Amino acid sequence: MMKKQKRFFITIEGGEGSGKTTQSFYLRDYFQQKGYKTLLTREPGGTVLAECIRNILLNPNLNLLPLSELFLYEAARVQHVKELILPALMSEKIVICDRFIDATVAYQGYGRKLDLKLINKLNFIAAYGIFPSLTIYLDIKSSRGLNKARMLNKKYYGKTGDRIESESMKFHVNVRNGYLKQAKKYPNRIKIVKIQKTPMQTQNLIRKIVDILF
Amino acid sequence: MMKKQKRFFITIEGGEGSGKTTQSFYLRDYFQQKGYKTLLTREPGGTVLAECIRNILLNPNLNLLPLSELFLYEAARVQHVKELILPALMSEKIVICDRFIDATVAYQGYGRKLDLKLINKLNFIAAYGIFPSLTIYLDIKSSRGLNKARMLNKKYYGKTGDRIESESMKFHVNVRNGYLKQAKKYPNRIKIVKIQKTPMQTQNLIRKIVDILF
Repeated sequence: MMKKQKRFFITIEGGEGSGKTTQSFYLRDYFQQKGYKTLLTREPGGTVLAECIRNILLNPNLNLLPLSELFLYEAARVQHVKELILPALMSEKIVICDRFIDATVAYQGYGRKLDLKLINKLNFIAAYGIFPSLTIYLDIKSSRGLNKARMLNKKYYGKTGDRIESESMKFHVNVRNGYLKQAKKYPNRIKIVKIQKTPMQTQNLIRKIVDILF
Repeated sequence: MMKKQKRFFITIEGGEGSGKTTQSFYLRDYFQQKGYKTLLTREPGGTVLAECIRNILLNPNLNLLPLSELFLYEAARVQHVKELILPALMSEKIVICDRFIDATVAYQGYGRKLDLKLINKLNFIAAYGIFPSLTIYLDIKSSRGLNKARMLNKKYYGKTGDRIESESMKFHVNVRNGYLKQAKKYPNRIKIVKIQKTPMQTQNLIRKIVDILF
């Protein structure tokens, strides 16, 4: 089968335990089955530098200041966009990214209470001025999501959570409110998908949204 | 002898091989002999996070984008100022810092050609709006400084230079011009000290400047 070519930049967003990673993989499979070339990536990550930074960011023993955290995310993003995302879009791939600029607004802005104007400016600069064509926000009640994330972590890694998961419930509720406000601000770009009983049910809702756009 | 107390924030700046580190140590000794409490620190560094970032920044095998580099310096700075510099100033110490905001202007702005307005804004935010009371800029011809730095590195570490030292001569000439322009812009704060034949001769010039201010 000939590979179809289509440039498309989709980000998958959500709080802890929302199932972003699973949904990103499912969505990649969906596009590949349809014959599209894809790139599945995540933030912070995707490059050697970004993985170094990711290790710093997720280290629960480092007392990281919110503003340092913001600068680290943006440093990783610059490299990620320039080295991975833009080249993939240029070679006609569908890029699916697990977290992107909206996560910075939700976590550093609404969660850590950093200035939103500063965040938007740095996001714009670090992402070379690009926005995703589509953002799927996976909505789950914070307490439920957090419990899920903690259970999964315990099951697979025998630990109780990284630096972000160890934050207070209030923090995670603020993050969720941040995402919902972003979705209200960009209704055309950000689509809210409520988490269903099974991952496949959630995925089917995502695929319906994607199908309309294609 | 009773410890005299004086808040004072001095930064020592200069290109590669200008002898910043030696001069910083000598100046610390000078203040200690006079009975002042001091903190000698450096950028990027001074905190656990900053030392992690320093390792990334100086790694010659990492292909770091200029904008990522800028964000990394600012991330380290936030933590450095908040955890180390501000507390030291509050406890009436004289802080001597080997490189600070002017280095970012010179290296990332004039060297890497990033937008100066962006750099000034990020410097201001990351340094919590503080400026040094005094900045000593150690001026040396770029070619001479670079040769010195490379010789020292070879002698002590058996290597030919880190990522910054491996930059082109043009880069280092631009950095020097950047420093000289900063000194012209802030003549009251930044004092240019020409490198003398011996480190002690240079130090004596620095001490004269410091004595006038005290």
